[in-house]
Formats: sequence, C-alpha cells, structure tokens
Amino acid sequence: MRLHPAVAAVRRGVRQCLADLPPADDRVVLVACSGGADSLALLAATVFEARASGDRVVGVTVDHGLQEGSTDQARHTVAQMQALGADETFAVSVTVEGAGQGPEAAARQARYAVLDQVADRVGAGAILLGHTLDDQAETVLLGLTRGSGGRSIAGMRRGFDRYRRPLLDVRREETEAACVAEGIAFWSDPHNADPRFLRSRVRLDVMPVLEDHLGPGVAETLARTADSLRTDMEALDELTEEWLTRADALQVAALATLPTAVRRRVLRAAAVRAGALDAELFHSHVLATDELVTAWRGQKWIDLPGHLRALRRDGAVVFEGSMPAD
Amino acid sequence: MRLHPAVAAVRRGVRQCLADLPPADDRVVLVACSGGADSLALLAATVFEARASGDRVVGVTVDHGLQEGSTDQARHTVAQMQALGADETFAVSVTVEGAGQGPEAAARQARYAVLDQVADRVGAGAILLGHTLDDQAETVLLGLTRGSGGRSIAGMRRGFDRYRRPLLDVRREETEAACVAEGIAFWSDPHNADPRFLRSRVRLDVMPVLEDHLGPGVAETLARTADSLRTDMEALDELTEEWLTRADALQVAALATLPTAVRRRVLRAAAVRAGALDAELFHSHVLATDELVTAWRGQKWIDLPGHLRALRRDGAVVFEGSMPAD
Repeated sequence: MRLHPAVAAVRRGVRQCLADLPPADDRVVLVACSGGADSLALLAATVFEARASGDRVVGVTVDHGLQEGSTDQARHTVAQMQALGADETFAVSVTVEGAGQGPEAAARQARYAVLDQVADRVGAGAILLGHTLDDQAETVLLGLTRGSGGRSIAGMRRGFDRYRRPLLDVRREETEAACVAEGIAFWSDPHNADPRFLRSRVRLDVMPVLEDHLGPGVAETLARTADSLRTDMEALDELTEEWLTRADALQVAALATLPTAVRRRVLRAAAVRAGALDAELFHSHVLATDELVTAWRGQKWIDLPGHLRALRRDGAVVFEGSMPAD
Repeated sequence: MRLHPAVAAVRRGVRQCLADLPPADDRVVLVACSGGADSLALLAATVFEARASGDRVVGVTVDHGLQEGSTDQARHTVAQMQALGADETFAVSVTVEGAGQGPEAAARQARYAVLDQVADRVGAGAILLGHTLDDQAETVLLGLTRGSGGRSIAGMRRGFDRYRRPLLDVRREETEAACVAEGIAFWSDPHNADPRFLRSRVRLDVMPVLEDHLGPGVAETLARTADSLRTDMEALDELTEEWLTRADALQVAALATLPTAVRRRVLRAAAVRAGALDAELFHSHVLATDELVTAWRGQKWIDLPGHLRALRRDGAVVFEGSMPAD
C-alpha cells in the first residue's frame, strides 16, 4: 500500500522538527492534542516517527471547560491518543480566568501553563503544537488588521523555548486528508466556525475571497511572508539588544549613527527597562523621545506612561521618574 | 465660508511636503496630473500653498496613448490645470514599449522618464505624485500576494530623488470630496475599474470585503503597517551597505557574527556586485550561499545565475565566474 501524500507531508514536518532536537537516549516528546484533524494527524505522525528515533510520546489534551460537552470530548481525545499509540496520555481541566484579557488569550495562557507543567512532570524536551500553514496565514492577516508593524504580521514562530510547530508548512486540508487516510475520526471545533471570533471570520470569509480574487496560493504566500519578516524582525531585535550592552548606548552622538528603526527600538527598550509601561508605550511616545536625538530644539522632557520622563542631559538620553501630580 | 475638511486635508499634505524641501527664492514644483480626482485635488492644493511659499507650479499630464480619446483627455486636463492656476502646463505624449515587462510597468517607466525630462527643463526641485492612502493600502495587499518579504509589503515611499507623495495620509474619497467642494470636475479612469488588472480587483473586490469582515479602518491600518515596515527595511539595507564597506565583509568569522537577515542581505548584495543576475537570484540561491557560512560541510560551490559561483576559500565567501557549459 502506498503512503498517502498527506500522511507523508505530516510525517515529514515532524521528522524535520525532531531532527533539530538535541539527540538523547530517553527523549520525551509531548504532543498537544485538541482532537481536531491537525493535532490528531500530528500525534499519529509523531508516534510513527518516534519508532525510528526511539522517543517516548506523551499526548496531552486540555479541557478549557468553555463548551458544553468539553469533558466528554477530552475523554474521547484521550482514548483516541491511546489507540493511536501514545505511550502516555493526560487530560487536564483548567479554569479560564479572563481578567484583563479576552477569552481566547486567557484560554491560550491557561493551556500553555498546563502544557509546561505536564512537560516538566514527564521530562519532555519538546512540546509539539499542531498549527498549520493556514493558521499561520490567518495569523498574518489578523496581524495586518492590528497595524502594529512587522512584528504583528511576522506570524507564529516555528519554535520557542521547548515549543515546536512541525506543521507550519502543511495545509489544514492535508491534516484532514491524513486523518481520513489513516481512519482517524476527528473533531471539528464549533468555535472555528463561530463568526463572533475574528479568526473565524478571517478563515471563512476573508481567505476564500482572497483566493478567488488574487489567485490560489495566497495562504502559502502569506506564510512565506511571515517567515521572511520573522527573520528580519529578529535581526532588528538582536541589533537592539547588542547596542544596549554598550557603555555609550544612550549617548546622542552614538545613537545618531544608528538606522532609524534600530535607534527607535533601542529607545523603546531603554524606556521599558527604566520602568515605562510596555503595553501603554505607544509609537508616538517613542517618536517624541527619538526627537531628543534627531530634532533637538531644547525640549524640556517627554512624559512616558509609568511616571517616567525622557529627557536629554549632557549629550545623552536619560530616563528618570516623574512624581505623579497631586 | 468655512474651508471644507477634505480640501484642508489635501492642503495639509502638500504643506507638510513642501516644508520638507530646502527653501529657495525660485522654487519650481511639478505636479503630475492624470485628470483624476487625486491629482486634480493635488494640483489645486499645490497652487494654493504656493501662494504662501512663493513657489512656481508646473502641471504635467502624460498621454500614454493606451486608451481611446486619451489625447482629448490630456488636452482637457491641461485646460483644467490652467484654470486652477498652474503657472505653466505640459501635455506630453509617450509611446509605451512593453519589451520584457507588463503594460502597467512599461507605462510607469515611460511616465517617470517624461516627468524627469520636464522637471529638468523647468528646473523643478520637486515632483509631486497624487498617490493616496488607498493606493498605498492596495500596494501593500498586492505585495502580500507576491510573498517576497517585507520589501514587497512596505508600500510606496513618501519620497525618493525629487519625487514626493503628499497625499499618502489622505483617503481617495477625500480627494473626490475636495474636488466636489471646489467645483472641479474630475475624470474616472476606466482602467481603475477594469477587472483585468489585479490592482482593480484588489480595489473593487478585496478591500470592501476586508472592511466588511475585519472592520473599517483596514486601509489606514495597511498604510500604517507599510510606514513601519519601510523604516525597518531601510535599516536592514543601511546595515548591509555599511557592512559591505568593511575589509573583512566576506570573511566567514565576521559574517557569522551578523544576524541572519543582515548576513543574507550582505551575501545577496555581494553576489549581485560580483555579477549575479539580480532578477534571477532567488531566495534558494541566497540560502545555499548562506550555508557556506552557517552549515559548512565542505560544499564544492553554489551555482548562481549569471555564470557565477559562490564558494568558501581560505575562510571567506568568494564569488568567481563559471564558464557556461558547452
């Protein structure tokens, strides 16, 4: 029987991902599994690849308790993971507290906390996430609607800390085809079709229109753009970090030699280190601070969120506390 | 009579743009004018602002001869520019030769050549183009469909050489409202509604869907993203240029200290300087060349378009000619 190309594509993603991990005799790989096509295909491929690499595969499903029947769904996913050959499985219930953030962000935060805990407990060297190329393309489009620059359209990273995304080059429909080819019944999360969620609208309404009018291959193009932008943004961040280690990092004469995008990142990072509130430090604050270097005309100071002031003194940009007004 | 806000917005764009020009007693400002709402509003605002700045305003319309009646249209635009108070006007016919490029690119190239000639002749210090915020947003979306990275979604520059785009913060409908408020009859280019052009499909089909599903303000967001990305891309280009002036620019030990995005730009630029064909030098060529630095395993050489080879010799990346095979 020939290997189905979709199964091959999913396995290739996992194989390349595992090849990047440091080799060891007793590696444990965690797979986060919602019961959807992407993560079930990921689990099945990881079990297959682990035969060759000798890794131990642990499946984890997280019950957010946000939908009716989610506990049954979690139980069902555990049974599926066991049937697919996972060496060990976990179903963990979490309570999502949405203080100060949206329900999606709160659920994500709770999920990562659980995955980290389980990974620590089983000594996992990698935690695999099932995000596909389509998820990446949608993330780029969502980022475009925020307009906060390159970082927001650079999409999801292929890896960070112990986390890896082996399916970022695999289409969502390939994960479904892989499940069908392997006889895996997958769950379709009703949230994914709920137009109350911006991501669902991007998936169901926006992407098909883009494909229709701009030609097929839009998702691949968006994902490729994300890869390229991520490399660019990482470079600018690296150069910023490197600059901040210099003794004269905030001297005006030195700052003036930097390209604009790096200089503004340096000033922003320096402000945050001095106590400015990251989330409230807007582009306009950074621009005004930058003018202490590039458009000096004796400005008194720039007020920054977090009771901080930026000012120019003795040829350097200085951050100092400002007492809140009575 | 109160000033219409759309007229005020167009004038503000022109005023800020002219403020950036070096002051002089006999400045001449050229306005490229198609007869559309954007460029007529631009011309009218430039004439108004020139009263205060003392600039001489020259209007130029270019007849590409691509549409029936284009000569009449050019004549009509000249009459409008004169009626609006331009100090001097030109209508120039060009023959668009599309050798090796699409009709849009050929028309653009012919247009810029004419504008440069007229600017030289009248001694213009600035050539103003009527691109609006909507044009910028469409350019970003078009760039996304190419997937060639940050550069292609960074949109149009606010200025280059003598060219300036004063209306990049002004909406297209504001230029139309400005024309209506000032009693200027504007021309609607049928090409802008012709679905054979990808840009028209983006304008008519894609943007409205994005506004519908992602909320209003998408065009502004795309334009803001372009501004931010342009600054980022310019920084990476500056750093690349700076690095290439170093004596050890292509030494592996030095290259290895660079962030990935800068190192790859350095290698790409060095290859082009050594004779590689810019348009045929793909990302895959650059990646393979980069592996001479980052994944050295005794590779023989990398073939590059333009009968060139990249190879590693004596601890440096070297480019040398390869004879074409007989």
